Amino acid sequence: MRTSRNPGPLRDPEGVAKYRHEAVAVLLRVGFTDASPRGLEVLAYRRRRPPFDDQWALPSGPVEVDETLGESVLRHLGHRTGVAGQVHLEQLETCGAPGRDPWDRTIATAFLALLPWSEGPEADEDLAWLPVASLPDMAFDHGKLTQAGAERLRAKLSYTNIAFALAPETFTIAQLRDAYSAVLGHEVSATNLQRILTRRGQLAPTGERATPGTGGGRPAQLYRFTRHELTVTDPFAVLRPREETAQGG
Amino acid sequence: MRTSRNPGPLRDPEGVAKYRHEAVAVLLRVGFTDASPRGLEVLAYRRRRPPFDDQWALPSGPVEVDETLGESVLRHLGHRTGVAGQVHLEQLETCGAPGRDPWDRTIATAFLALLPWSEGPEADEDLAWLPVASLPDMAFDHGKLTQAGAERLRAKLSYTNIAFALAPETFTIAQLRDAYSAVLGHEVSATNLQRILTRRGQLAPTGERATPGTGGGRPAQLYRFTRHELTVTDPFAVLRPREETAQGG
Repeated sequence: MRTSRNPGPLRDPEGVAKYRHEAVAVLLRVGFTDASPRGLEVLAYRRRRPPFDDQWALPSGPVEVDETLGESVLRHLGHRTGVAGQVHLEQLETCGAPGRDPWDRTIATAFLALLPWSEGPEADEDLAWLPVASLPDMAFDHGKLTQAGAERLRAKLSYTNIAFALAPETFTIAQLRDAYSAVLGHEVSATNLQRILTRRGQLAPTGERATPGTGGGRPAQLYRFTRHELTVTDPFAVLRPREETAQGG
Repeated sequence: MRTSRNPGPLRDPEGVAKYRHEAVAVLLRVGFTDASPRGLEVLAYRRRRPPFDDQWALPSGPVEVDETLGESVLRHLGHRTGVAGQVHLEQLETCGAPGRDPWDRTIATAFLALLPWSEGPEADEDLAWLPVASLPDMAFDHGKLTQAGAERLRAKLSYTNIAFALAPETFTIAQLRDAYSAVLGHEVSATNLQRILTRRGQLAPTGERATPGTGGGRPAQLYRFTRHELTVTDPFAVLRPREETAQGG
């Protein structure tokens, strides 16, 4: 609990300055209202102390002496929001500018974390899924970190298989198309998406069909991602002859 | 100058632990002997004190209280190696595992730095361009960081224009092909490389020709990169119809 400004930097016996180090979670998901995508959302909690009292902040906290940065971010994420275990996690960036924390120099390592659409804790007075496209002011540089996380996700949708981390175990192509559109911020063709992901070997039909909705008609096929570890999609395709590039996607 | 193990962690008045924080440079270039590429190389200096006395280490040192992480890495790079100013620099990753520094917990933010081929300081007894493909043991986790930097560079050669940072202002296609081959570790076709980079608008002929070599024949055309800021190459190409993908490369 931080209750006051700290004095100047602590230095070790050799005179080297030492710093607070925090782990920060940029936890993103695609939100849906019933069957309609709301867009990309970030999980935030309301601070109840200065600095930035009453503002929204990303789940974060100090790194303890016996834990890695990754262990620390999962601990704070669980403590602040109840989210535990099954999130996709990757390091995003470390922010260390003097002044980013007005009370004491704090270096923060941010992680991008992803949940399948609509999963995660319910919002309440102190916990919110904020829309990334229209973020309110956030504590520290947490707004900037949120945008950096969203940008990383958008880029990786193109050159990796990261979409597996946004989807539940099985899904329809229409749902997947909606999720891609929500992240990228533009329309995506379901037909092209299905063709490209199938050609890359990322997508496979389950043989099952979705529960019929109220709209009538035949229920849609259910698909799954073939891999749930992050891989870069054909990173050297561009250096192969053009014909292979076109076939390899 | 570190001369002994430090005592346990320092804690601020709120009981939060504070850590040494270092900035580390993974400075890579493609080395050439005359006109033949030697491969991807990393700049290292020989430590002259424990821990890891006499081993090769990446240019690094403590972050001072009034500098950003990026300023810090450039300062240490200049101090240890004389390299200043014109390097491409991007954050790579932050390593904070307990025990990575055997004397005191130190969190290190590593940066990937790139120099045009054959540029940079001359090797001497305390400074070396180590071959990334056959690294000797290095101090701390600096060998692992070097491999992470090389992997980032390889991936970005495919989906960004980062090659501009590996080349001098003007170059022949054969030289550029050699540099790509050295980084990727496999043969690259000069014809395909030229076609792809030209189609992406990254490469332009200067109208000049190289100084004639000893081999006789007409001197090769000189090219330049059209942009010297990092951009992701057409990140959403994969979500467009197949025909556009093929044309857009």
